[in-house]
Amino acid sequence: MTETATPAALAPDEARARFRAGLRVPTSGWCAGWTQANLLAVPRALAYDFLLFAQRNPAACPVLDVTEPGAAGSPRFAGDLRTDLPAYRVYEHGELVAEVDDVTDRWREDMVAFLIGCSFTFEDALLEAGVPVRHIEQGSNVPMYRTGIDCRPAGELSGPLVVSMRPMAASQVATAVRVTSRYPAVHGAPVHVGSPAELGITDLDAPDFGDPVEVRPGEVPVFWACGVTPQAAVMQSRPELAIGHAPGHMAITDIRESEHVVP
Amino acid sequence: MTETATPAALAPDEARARFRAGLRVPTSGWCAGWTQANLLAVPRALAYDFLLFAQRNPAACPVLDVTEPGAAGSPRFAGDLRTDLPAYRVYEHGELVAEVDDVTDRWREDMVAFLIGCSFTFEDALLEAGVPVRHIEQGSNVPMYRTGIDCRPAGELSGPLVVSMRPMAASQVATAVRVTSRYPAVHGAPVHVGSPAELGITDLDAPDFGDPVEVRPGEVPVFWACGVTPQAAVMQSRPELAIGHAPGHMAITDIRESEHVVP
Repeated sequence: MTETATPAALAPDEARARFRAGLRVPTSGWCAGWTQANLLAVPRALAYDFLLFAQRNPAACPVLDVTEPGAAGSPRFAGDLRTDLPAYRVYEHGELVAEVDDVTDRWREDMVAFLIGCSFTFEDALLEAGVPVRHIEQGSNVPMYRTGIDCRPAGELSGPLVVSMRPMAASQVATAVRVTSRYPAVHGAPVHVGSPAELGITDLDAPDFGDPVEVRPGEVPVFWACGVTPQAAVMQSRPELAIGHAPGHMAITDIRESEHVVP
Repeated sequence: MTETATPAALAPDEARARFRAGLRVPTSGWCAGWTQANLLAVPRALAYDFLLFAQRNPAACPVLDVTEPGAAGSPRFAGDLRTDLPAYRVYEHGELVAEVDDVTDRWREDMVAFLIGCSFTFEDALLEAGVPVRHIEQGSNVPMYRTGIDCRPAGELSGPLVVSMRPMAASQVATAVRVTSRYPAVHGAPVHVGSPAELGITDLDAPDFGDPVEVRPGEVPVFWACGVTPQAAVMQSRPELAIGHAPGHMAITDIRESEHVVP
Protein backbone atom coordinates (compact mmCIF):
# COMPACT_ATOMS: atom_id res chain seq x y z
CA MET A 1 0.00 0.00 0.00
CA THR A 2 2.82 2.39 -0.85
CA GLU A 3 0.40 4.77 -2.54
CA THR A 4 -1.55 5.34 0.69
CA ALA A 5 1.43 5.41 3.03
CA THR A 6 2.52 8.86 2.00
CA PRO A 7 -0.95 10.47 2.04
CA ALA A 8 -1.52 9.05 5.54
CA ALA A 9 1.52 10.90 6.83
CA LEU A 10 0.56 14.29 5.37
CA ALA A 11 -0.58 17.21 7.48
CA PRO A 12 -3.97 18.72 6.56
CA ASP A 13 -2.48 21.81 4.92
CA GLU A 14 -0.15 19.65 2.81
CA ALA A 15 -3.04 17.51 1.61
CA ARG A 16 -5.17 20.58 0.88
CA ALA A 17 -2.33 22.12 -1.17
CA ARG A 18 -2.26 19.01 -3.38
CA PHE A 19 -6.01 19.09 -3.91
CA ARG A 20 -5.90 22.82 -4.60
CA ALA A 21 -3.24 22.11 -7.22
CA GLY A 22 -5.63 19.72 -8.95
CA LEU A 23 -5.17 16.25 -7.46
CA ARG A 24 -8.53 14.48 -7.54
CA VAL A 25 -8.65 11.28 -5.45
CA PRO A 26 -10.83 9.85 -2.68
CA THR A 27 -9.37 10.80 0.71
CA SER A 28 -9.84 7.52 2.58
CA GLY A 29 -6.53 6.80 4.28
CA TRP A 30 -5.25 10.37 4.07
CA CYS A 31 -3.86 12.43 6.97
CA ALA A 32 -3.96 9.91 9.81
CA GLY A 33 -5.09 11.46 13.09
CA TRP A 34 -7.01 14.33 11.45
CA THR A 35 -10.75 14.60 11.06
CA GLN A 36 -12.28 14.37 7.59
CA ALA A 37 -15.52 16.13 6.80
CA ASN A 38 -18.40 16.21 4.35
CA LEU A 39 -19.26 19.60 2.90
CA LEU A 40 -22.64 21.13 2.26
CA ALA A 41 -22.81 24.81 1.38
CA VAL A 42 -26.12 26.61 0.85
CA PRO A 43 -27.30 30.22 0.60
CA ARG A 44 -28.02 31.84 3.97
CA ALA A 45 -31.79 31.59 3.41
CA LEU A 46 -31.57 27.79 3.55
CA ALA A 47 -29.04 27.63 6.40
CA TYR A 48 -31.58 27.34 9.22
CA ASP A 49 -33.42 24.48 7.54
CA PHE A 50 -30.15 22.65 6.99
CA LEU A 51 -28.82 23.21 10.51
CA LEU A 52 -32.15 21.95 11.89
CA PHE A 53 -32.04 18.96 9.52
CA ALA A 54 -28.60 18.16 10.94
CA GLN A 55 -29.81 18.58 14.51
CA ARG A 56 -32.70 16.20 13.82
CA ASN A 57 -30.52 13.60 12.10
CA PRO A 58 -27.37 13.62 14.19
CA ALA A 59 -26.10 10.16 13.22
CA ALA A 60 -26.00 11.14 9.54
CA CYS A 61 -25.17 14.83 10.03
CA PRO A 62 -22.83 15.43 12.99
CA VAL A 63 -21.93 19.11 12.61
CA LEU A 64 -18.25 19.85 13.13
CA ASP A 65 -18.31 23.49 12.07
CA VAL A 66 -20.39 26.16 10.36
CA THR A 67 -18.86 29.10 8.50
CA GLU A 68 -19.96 32.72 8.66
CA PRO A 69 -22.05 33.69 5.63
CA GLY A 70 -19.74 34.29 2.67
CA ALA A 71 -16.60 33.03 4.41
CA ALA A 72 -14.56 30.39 2.61
CA GLY A 73 -12.90 28.97 5.69
CA SER A 74 -13.18 28.69 9.44
CA PRO A 75 -10.93 28.23 12.45
CA ARG A 76 -11.41 24.48 12.11
CA PHE A 77 -10.65 24.41 8.38
CA ALA A 78 -7.79 26.83 7.80
CA GLY A 79 -7.90 26.48 4.02
CA ASP A 80 -10.22 27.62 1.25
CA LEU A 81 -13.41 25.56 1.12
CA ARG A 82 -13.93 26.58 -2.51
CA THR A 83 -10.68 25.05 -3.80
CA ASP A 84 -9.12 22.74 -1.21
CA LEU A 85 -11.27 19.63 -1.58
CA PRO A 86 -10.35 17.11 -4.30
CA ALA A 87 -13.73 17.51 -6.04
CA TYR A 88 -17.17 19.10 -5.63
CA ARG A 89 -20.71 18.53 -6.77
CA VAL A 90 -22.90 21.51 -7.64
CA TYR A 91 -26.69 21.16 -7.50
CA GLU A 92 -29.24 23.59 -8.93
CA HIS A 93 -32.86 22.87 -8.05
CA GLY A 94 -31.76 19.39 -7.01
CA GLU A 95 -30.06 18.54 -10.30
CA LEU A 96 -26.36 17.74 -10.36
CA VAL A 97 -25.13 20.37 -12.80
CA ALA A 98 -21.38 20.04 -12.35
CA GLU A 99 -18.66 17.92 -10.78
CA VAL A 100 -15.60 20.16 -10.61
CA ASP A 101 -12.46 20.72 -8.57
CA ASP A 102 -12.99 24.44 -7.90
CA VAL A 103 -16.26 26.17 -6.98
CA THR A 104 -14.93 29.70 -6.49
CA ASP A 105 -17.12 31.10 -9.26
CA ARG A 106 -20.24 29.43 -7.83
CA TRP A 107 -19.74 30.50 -4.19
CA ARG A 108 -22.38 33.16 -3.57
CA GLU A 109 -21.57 35.95 -1.17
CA ASP A 110 -24.08 34.71 1.42
CA MET A 111 -22.98 31.06 1.23
CA VAL A 112 -22.92 29.18 4.55
CA ALA A 113 -20.81 26.01 4.65
CA PHE A 114 -21.44 23.10 6.98
CA LEU A 115 -18.68 20.62 7.79
CA ILE A 116 -20.16 17.26 8.73
CA GLY A 117 -18.08 14.47 10.27
CA CYS A 118 -16.93 11.68 7.91
CA SER A 119 -16.45 8.03 8.82
CA PHE A 120 -13.07 7.94 7.06
CA THR A 121 -11.86 9.47 10.33
CA PHE A 122 -12.34 6.23 12.31
CA GLU A 123 -10.86 3.88 9.70
CA ASP A 124 -7.39 4.09 11.25
CA ALA A 125 -8.88 2.95 14.53
CA LEU A 126 -10.64 0.05 12.78
CA LEU A 127 -7.39 -1.02 11.12
CA GLU A 128 -5.52 -0.80 14.41
CA ALA A 129 -8.18 -3.01 15.99
CA GLY A 130 -7.67 -5.59 13.24
CA VAL A 131 -10.89 -4.83 11.36
CA PRO A 132 -10.29 -4.69 7.59
CA VAL A 133 -11.27 -1.69 5.51
CA ARG A 134 -11.89 -3.25 2.12
CA HIS A 135 -11.99 -0.08 0.04
CA ILE A 136 -8.56 0.92 1.39
CA GLU A 137 -7.26 -2.59 0.54
CA GLN A 138 -8.74 -2.24 -2.95
CA GLY A 139 -7.58 1.35 -3.41
CA SER A 140 -11.12 2.39 -4.30
CA ASN A 141 -13.81 4.70 -2.94
CA VAL A 142 -16.13 3.48 -0.15
CA PRO A 143 -19.50 2.15 -1.36
CA MET A 144 -22.47 4.31 -0.33
CA TYR A 145 -26.17 3.53 -0.68
CA ARG A 146 -29.40 5.47 -0.56
CA THR A 147 -31.66 3.60 1.89
CA GLY A 148 -35.44 3.32 2.24
CA ILE A 149 -35.25 5.06 5.62
CA ASP A 150 -36.52 8.64 5.68
CA CYS A 151 -34.62 11.24 7.65
CA ARG A 152 -36.60 13.53 9.93
CA PRO A 153 -37.45 16.49 7.68
CA ALA A 154 -36.74 20.12 8.58
CA GLY A 155 -38.37 23.03 6.80
CA GLU A 156 -37.82 22.59 3.06
CA LEU A 157 -35.45 19.64 3.47
CA SER A 158 -36.34 15.96 3.40
CA GLY A 159 -34.71 12.87 2.02
CA PRO A 160 -33.46 9.36 2.64
CA LEU A 161 -30.66 8.22 4.92
CA VAL A 162 -27.48 7.40 2.99
CA VAL A 163 -25.12 4.80 4.45
CA SER A 164 -21.55 3.70 3.85
CA MET A 165 -20.70 0.00 3.97
CA ARG A 166 -17.68 -1.96 5.13
CA PRO A 167 -17.74 -5.77 4.95
CA MET A 168 -16.04 -7.83 7.65
CA ALA A 169 -15.96 -11.27 9.25
CA ALA A 170 -18.91 -11.94 11.56
CA SER A 171 -16.43 -12.27 14.42
CA GLN A 172 -15.22 -8.69 13.86
CA VAL A 173 -18.59 -6.96 14.03
CA ALA A 174 -18.59 -6.45 17.79
CA THR A 175 -15.11 -4.95 17.65
CA ALA A 176 -16.17 -2.58 14.87
CA VAL A 177 -19.18 -1.46 16.93
CA ARG A 178 -17.08 -0.95 20.03
CA VAL A 179 -14.35 0.99 18.21
CA THR A 180 -16.61 3.27 16.18
CA SER A 181 -18.95 4.00 19.10
CA ARG A 182 -16.13 6.15 20.42
CA TYR A 183 -16.46 8.49 17.41
CA PRO A 184 -19.97 10.00 17.56
CA ALA A 185 -18.77 13.17 15.81
CA VAL A 186 -17.94 11.15 12.68
CA HIS A 187 -21.11 8.98 12.62
CA GLY A 188 -20.29 6.72 15.56
CA ALA A 189 -21.58 3.16 15.77
CA PRO A 190 -23.11 1.35 12.78
CA VAL A 191 -26.80 1.99 12.15
CA HIS A 192 -27.32 -1.50 10.71
CA VAL A 193 -25.50 -4.84 10.56
CA GLY A 194 -26.28 -7.39 7.82
CA SER A 195 -29.58 -7.58 5.89
CA PRO A 196 -29.12 -4.95 3.17
CA ALA A 197 -32.69 -5.68 2.00
CA GLU A 198 -34.01 -4.32 5.30
CA LEU A 199 -32.45 -0.99 4.36
CA GLY A 200 -34.01 -1.16 0.91
CA ILE A 201 -30.65 -1.97 -0.73
CA THR A 202 -31.22 -4.51 -3.49
CA ASP A 203 -27.71 -4.92 -4.88
CA LEU A 204 -24.56 -4.38 -2.83
CA ASP A 205 -22.55 -4.42 -6.06
CA ALA A 206 -24.35 -1.32 -7.32
CA PRO A 207 -23.75 1.46 -4.80
CA ASP A 208 -25.44 4.80 -5.42
CA PHE A 209 -22.17 6.64 -4.68
CA GLY A 210 -18.54 5.45 -4.64
CA ASP A 211 -17.33 2.03 -5.80
CA PRO A 212 -18.43 -1.55 -5.08
CA VAL A 213 -16.16 -3.64 -2.86
CA GLU A 214 -15.69 -7.38 -2.59
CA VAL A 215 -17.79 -9.07 0.11
CA ARG A 216 -16.12 -12.41 0.80
CA PRO A 217 -17.92 -15.62 1.82
CA GLY A 218 -18.88 -15.45 5.48
CA GLU A 219 -18.50 -11.69 5.64
CA VAL A 220 -21.24 -9.41 6.93
CA PRO A 221 -21.94 -5.95 5.45
CA VAL A 222 -21.85 -3.31 8.19
CA PHE A 223 -23.53 0.04 7.54
CA TRP A 224 -22.77 3.47 8.97
CA ALA A 225 -24.78 6.66 8.55
CA CYS A 226 -23.09 8.75 5.86
CA GLY A 227 -22.52 12.46 5.36
CA VAL A 228 -23.73 12.21 1.77
CA THR A 229 -27.22 12.20 3.33
CA PRO A 230 -27.45 16.02 2.99
CA GLN A 231 -26.85 15.70 -0.76
CA ALA A 232 -29.63 13.12 -1.04
CA ALA A 233 -31.89 15.65 0.73
CA VAL A 234 -30.81 18.32 -1.76
CA MET A 235 -31.66 16.00 -4.66
CA GLN A 236 -35.10 15.30 -3.21
CA SER A 237 -35.93 18.79 -1.92
CA ARG A 238 -34.55 20.80 -4.86
CA PRO A 239 -33.33 24.04 -3.26
CA GLU A 240 -32.11 26.68 -5.67
CA LEU A 241 -28.39 26.05 -5.06
CA ALA A 242 -26.27 23.69 -2.99
CA ILE A 243 -22.62 22.70 -3.20
CA GLY A 244 -21.29 19.48 -1.72
CA HIS A 245 -18.07 17.50 -1.88
CA ALA A 246 -17.88 14.73 -4.46
CA PRO A 247 -18.68 11.60 -2.41
CA GLY A 248 -15.49 10.18 -0.92
CA HIS A 249 -13.52 13.33 -1.77
CA MET A 250 -13.59 14.99 1.60
CA ALA A 251 -12.58 18.19 3.34
CA ILE A 252 -9.56 17.46 5.52
CA THR A 253 -9.95 19.62 8.60
CA ASP A 254 -7.59 20.96 11.25
CA ILE A 255 -9.52 19.11 13.94
CA ARG A 256 -7.47 16.39 15.58
CA GLU A 257 -9.27 13.08 15.75
CA SER A 258 -8.42 12.92 19.46
CA GLU A 259 -10.41 16.11 20.08
CA HIS A 260 -13.76 14.37 19.74
CA VAL A 261 -13.10 10.74 20.62
CA VAL A 262 -15.08 9.65 23.67
CA PRO A 263 -13.82 7.12 26.26
CA MET B 1 -38.24 14.40 52.08
CA THR B 2 -41.96 13.64 51.86
CA GLU B 3 -42.56 16.81 49.89
CA THR B 4 -40.34 15.67 47.01
CA ALA B 5 -41.37 12.00 47.05
CA THR B 6 -44.69 12.64 45.35
CA PRO B 7 -43.41 14.95 42.61
CA ALA B 8 -40.65 12.45 41.81
CA ALA B 9 -43.24 9.77 41.09
CA LEU B 10 -45.35 11.88 38.74
CA ALA B 11 -45.50 11.29 34.99
CA PRO B 12 -44.62 14.29 32.78
CA ASP B 13 -48.24 14.99 31.80
CA GLU B 14 -49.32 14.92 35.45
CA ALA B 15 -46.62 17.41 36.41
CA ARG B 16 -47.45 19.65 33.45
CA ALA B 17 -51.14 19.65 34.43
CA ARG B 18 -50.21 20.97 37.88
CA PHE B 19 -48.05 23.72 36.46
CA ARG B 20 -50.75 24.61 33.94
CA ALA B 21 -53.16 24.91 36.87
CA GLY B 22 -50.87 27.46 38.49
CA LEU B 23 -48.35 25.62 40.67
CA ARG B 24 -45.11 27.57 40.63
CA VAL B 25 -42.13 25.67 42.07
CA PRO B 26 -38.62 24.71 40.97
CA THR B 27 -38.70 21.29 39.30
CA SER B 28 -35.54 19.77 40.78
CA GLY B 29 -36.52 16.30 42.00
CA TRP B 30 -39.67 16.07 39.86
CA CYS B 31 -40.60 13.18 37.52
CA ALA B 32 -37.74 10.76 38.11
CA GLY B 33 -36.55 9.09 34.91
CA TRP B 34 -37.78 11.89 32.62
CA THR B 35 -35.69 14.55 30.97
CA GLN B 36 -36.04 18.16 32.08
CA ALA B 37 -35.36 21.00 29.68
CA ASN B 38 -34.60 24.68 29.51
CA LEU B 39 -36.77 26.73 27.18
CA LEU B 40 -35.78 29.50 24.82
CA ALA B 41 -38.34 30.70 22.29
CA VAL B 42 -37.53 33.37 19.73
CA PRO B 43 -39.11 34.70 16.53
CA ARG B 44 -38.20 32.72 13.41
CA ALA B 45 -35.84 35.47 12.23
CA LEU B 46 -33.54 34.80 15.21
CA ALA B 47 -33.85 30.99 15.09
CA TYR B 48 -30.80 30.36 12.93
CA ASP B 49 -28.56 32.48 15.13
CA PHE B 50 -29.78 30.67 18.21
CA LEU B 51 -29.48 27.17 16.73
CA LEU B 52 -25.94 28.04 15.63
CA PHE B 53 -25.17 29.46 19.09
CA ALA B 54 -26.30 26.14 20.55
CA GLN B 55 -24.21 24.16 18.06
CA ARG B 56 -21.15 26.25 18.97
CA ASN B 57 -21.71 25.93 22.72
CA PRO B 58 -22.86 22.35 23.11
CA ALA B 59 -21.97 21.91 26.78
CA ALA B 60 -24.24 24.82 27.75
CA CYS B 61 -26.86 24.33 25.03
CA PRO B 62 -27.47 20.66 24.21
CA VAL B 63 -30.52 20.82 21.92
CA LEU B 64 -33.16 18.20 22.70
CA ASP B 65 -35.84 19.46 20.35
CA VAL B 66 -36.90 22.39 18.16
CA THR B 67 -40.53 23.21 17.41
CA GLU B 68 -41.98 24.18 14.06
CA PRO B 69 -42.53 27.95 13.79
CA GLY B 70 -45.69 28.87 15.71
CA ALA B 71 -46.20 25.43 17.24
CA ALA B 72 -46.68 25.26 21.00
CA GLY B 73 -45.54 21.68 21.40
CA SER B 74 -43.56 18.91 19.74
CA PRO B 75 -43.46 15.12 19.71
CA ARG B 76 -40.95 15.26 22.55
CA PHE B 77 -43.02 17.69 24.65
CA ALA B 78 -46.64 16.63 24.29
CA GLY B 79 -47.99 19.58 26.23
CA ASP B 80 -48.37 23.30 25.63
CA LEU B 81 -45.06 25.15 25.92
CA ARG B 82 -46.94 28.41 26.58
CA THR B 83 -48.66 27.22 29.78
CA ASP B 84 -47.11 23.98 31.03
CA LEU B 85 -43.95 25.25 32.68
CA PRO B 86 -44.15 26.49 36.27
CA ALA B 87 -42.94 29.98 35.30
CA TYR B 88 -41.51 31.98 32.41
CA ARG B 89 -39.33 35.00 31.83
CA VAL B 90 -40.14 37.37 28.98
CA TYR B 91 -37.39 39.58 27.54
CA GLU B 92 -37.87 42.55 25.22
CA HIS B 93 -34.67 44.03 23.79
CA GLY B 94 -32.78 42.15 26.49
CA GLU B 95 -34.77 43.55 29.39
CA LEU B 96 -36.71 41.21 31.66
CA VAL B 97 -40.21 42.64 31.27
CA ALA B 98 -42.27 39.91 32.95
CA GLU B 99 -42.03 36.77 35.05
CA VAL B 100 -45.35 34.99 34.55
CA ASP B 101 -46.89 31.52 34.55
CA ASP B 102 -48.55 31.76 31.13
CA VAL B 103 -47.08 33.27 27.95
CA THR B 104 -49.94 32.47 25.55
CA ASP B 105 -50.58 36.14 24.81
CA ARG B 106 -46.89 36.78 24.09
CA TRP B 107 -46.30 33.77 21.81
CA ARG B 108 -45.95 35.23 18.31
CA GLU B 109 -47.19 33.17 15.41
CA ASP B 110 -43.67 32.57 14.08
CA MET B 111 -42.19 31.63 17.45
CA VAL B 112 -39.62 28.81 17.41
CA ALA B 113 -38.98 27.06 20.73
CA PHE B 114 -35.76 25.32 21.64
CA LEU B 115 -35.66 22.70 24.38
CA ILE B 116 -32.19 22.51 25.91
CA GLY B 117 -31.17 19.70 28.27
CA CYS B 118 -31.18 20.49 32.01
CA SER B 119 -28.83 19.08 34.62
CA PHE B 120 -31.76 18.34 36.97
CA THR B 121 -32.08 15.22 34.80
CA PHE B 122 -28.92 13.62 36.21
CA GLU B 123 -29.54 14.46 39.85
CA ASP B 124 -31.26 11.12 40.48
CA ALA B 125 -28.16 9.38 39.20
CA LEU B 126 -25.97 11.50 41.49
CA LEU B 127 -28.14 10.66 44.50
CA GLU B 128 -28.08 6.95 43.62
CA ALA B 129 -24.28 7.13 43.45
CA GLY B 130 -24.21 8.66 46.93
CA VAL B 131 -23.38 12.20 45.83
CA PRO B 132 -25.48 14.76 47.72
CA VAL B 133 -27.60 17.32 45.93
CA ARG B 134 -27.70 20.15 48.43
CA HIS B 135 -30.52 22.21 46.88
CA ILE B 136 -32.79 19.15 46.98
CA GLU B 137 -31.83 18.58 50.66
CA GLN B 138 -32.59 22.23 51.35
CA GLY B 139 -35.76 22.30 49.28
CA SER B 140 -34.48 25.31 47.35
CA ASN B 141 -33.58 26.19 43.78
CA VAL B 142 -30.12 25.33 42.42
CA PRO B 143 -27.59 28.20 42.56
CA MET B 144 -26.55 29.49 39.12
CA TYR B 145 -23.81 31.98 38.28
CA ARG B 146 -22.86 34.12 35.33
CA THR B 147 -19.16 33.42 34.66
CA GLY B 148 -16.39 35.46 33.09
CA ILE B 149 -16.12 32.92 30.26
CA ASP B 150 -17.50 34.06 26.92
CA CYS B 151 -19.50 31.65 24.82
CA ARG B 152 -18.63 31.38 21.14
CA PRO B 153 -20.90 33.98 19.51
CA ALA B 154 -23.23 33.26 16.58
CA GLY B 155 -24.74 35.99 14.43
CA GLU B 156 -26.45 38.48 16.75
CA LEU B 157 -25.98 36.36 19.87
CA SER B 158 -23.15 36.54 22.36
CA GLY B 159 -22.90 36.25 26.10
CA PRO B 160 -21.24 34.61 29.09
CA LEU B 161 -21.38 30.97 30.12
CA VAL B 162 -23.79 30.38 33.03
CA VAL B 163 -23.07 27.49 35.39
CA SER B 164 -24.99 25.61 38.07
CA MET B 165 -23.17 24.58 41.25
CA ARG B 166 -23.43 21.57 43.54
CA PRO B 167 -21.09 21.33 46.56
CA MET B 168 -19.75 17.94 47.62
CA ALA B 169 -16.98 16.26 49.59
CA ALA B 170 -13.64 16.21 47.76
CA SER B 171 -13.80 12.42 47.78
CA GLN B 172 -17.05 12.51 45.79
CA VAL B 173 -15.87 14.67 42.90
CA ALA B 174 -14.56 11.80 40.77
CA THR B 175 -17.84 9.93 41.18
CA ALA B 176 -19.81 13.01 40.17
CA VAL B 177 -17.66 13.42 37.04
CA ARG B 178 -18.03 9.76 36.13
CA VAL B 179 -21.79 9.71 36.65
CA THR B 180 -22.61 12.95 34.85
CA SER B 181 -20.27 12.22 31.91
CA ARG B 182 -22.89 9.69 30.85
CA TYR B 183 -25.42 12.49 30.30
CA PRO B 184 -24.01 14.73 27.55
CA ALA B 185 -27.53 15.70 26.42
CA VAL B 186 -28.15 17.37 29.78
CA HIS B 187 -24.76 19.16 30.11
CA GLY B 188 -22.62 16.10 30.87
CA ALA B 189 -19.47 16.34 32.97
CA PRO B 190 -18.64 19.39 35.09
CA VAL B 191 -16.90 22.26 33.30
CA HIS B 192 -15.02 23.31 36.42
CA VAL B 193 -14.20 21.91 39.87
CA GLY B 194 -13.27 24.21 42.77
CA SER B 195 -11.83 27.75 42.38
CA PRO B 196 -14.94 29.87 41.80
CA ALA B 197 -12.68 32.91 41.36
CA GLU B 198 -11.23 31.33 38.20
CA LEU B 199 -14.74 31.47 36.74
CA GLY B 200 -15.12 35.09 37.78
CA ILE B 201 -17.49 34.18 40.62
CA THR B 202 -16.72 36.38 43.62
CA ASP B 203 -19.38 35.24 46.10
CA LEU B 204 -20.87 31.75 46.09
CA ASP B 205 -23.56 32.99 48.48
CA ALA B 206 -24.86 35.44 45.89
CA PRO B 207 -25.89 33.43 42.84
CA ASP B 208 -27.14 35.34 39.80
CA PHE B 209 -30.08 32.95 39.46
CA GLY B 210 -31.70 30.52 41.94
CA ASP B 211 -30.87 30.28 45.64
CA PRO B 212 -27.62 30.01 47.60
CA VAL B 213 -26.84 26.62 49.19
CA GLU B 214 -24.70 25.70 52.15
CA VAL B 215 -21.10 24.74 51.31
CA ARG B 216 -19.83 22.78 54.31
CA PRO B 217 -16.23 22.74 55.54
CA GLY B 218 -14.11 20.51 53.31
CA GLU B 219 -16.63 20.57 50.49
CA VAL B 220 -15.70 21.55 46.93
CA PRO B 221 -18.02 23.51 44.63
CA VAL B 222 -18.54 21.65 41.36
CA PHE B 223 -19.82 23.58 38.34
CA TRP B 224 -21.82 22.38 35.35
CA ALA B 225 -22.67 24.33 32.19
CA CYS B 226 -26.24 25.57 32.56
CA GLY B 227 -29.13 26.04 30.16
CA VAL B 228 -29.75 29.54 31.48
CA THR B 229 -26.79 30.50 29.27
CA PRO B 230 -29.17 31.35 26.37
CA GLN B 231 -30.98 33.85 28.59
CA ALA B 232 -27.68 35.48 29.52
CA ALA B 233 -27.01 35.81 25.75
CA VAL B 234 -30.45 37.38 25.31
CA MET B 235 -29.71 39.88 28.08
CA GLN B 236 -26.41 40.83 26.46
CA SER B 237 -27.49 40.74 22.80
CA ARG B 238 -30.90 42.38 23.19
CA PRO B 239 -33.02 40.75 20.48
CA GLU B 240 -36.53 42.16 20.07
CA LEU B 241 -38.28 39.29 21.89
CA ALA B 242 -37.28 36.10 23.69
CA ILE B 243 -39.15 33.89 26.13
CA GLY B 244 -37.38 31.56 28.53
CA HIS B 245 -38.30 29.45 31.52
CA ALA B 246 -37.81 31.03 34.94
CA PRO B 247 -34.47 29.59 36.07
CA GLY B 248 -35.00 26.27 37.86
CA HIS B 249 -38.63 26.08 36.68
CA MET B 250 -38.15 23.69 33.79
CA ALA B 251 -40.07 22.07 30.95
CA ILE B 252 -40.64 18.43 31.83
CA THR B 253 -40.38 16.53 28.56
CA ASP B 254 -41.62 13.17 27.33
CA ILE B 255 -38.05 12.07 26.68
CA ARG B 256 -36.98 9.22 28.91
CA GLU B 257 -33.68 9.82 30.62
CA SER B 258 -32.54 6.39 29.39
CA GLU B 259 -32.96 7.51 25.77
CA HIS B 260 -29.85 9.65 25.83
CA VAL B 261 -27.64 8.16 28.53
CA VAL B 262 -24.34 6.91 27.12
CA PRO B 263 -22.49 3.83 28.43
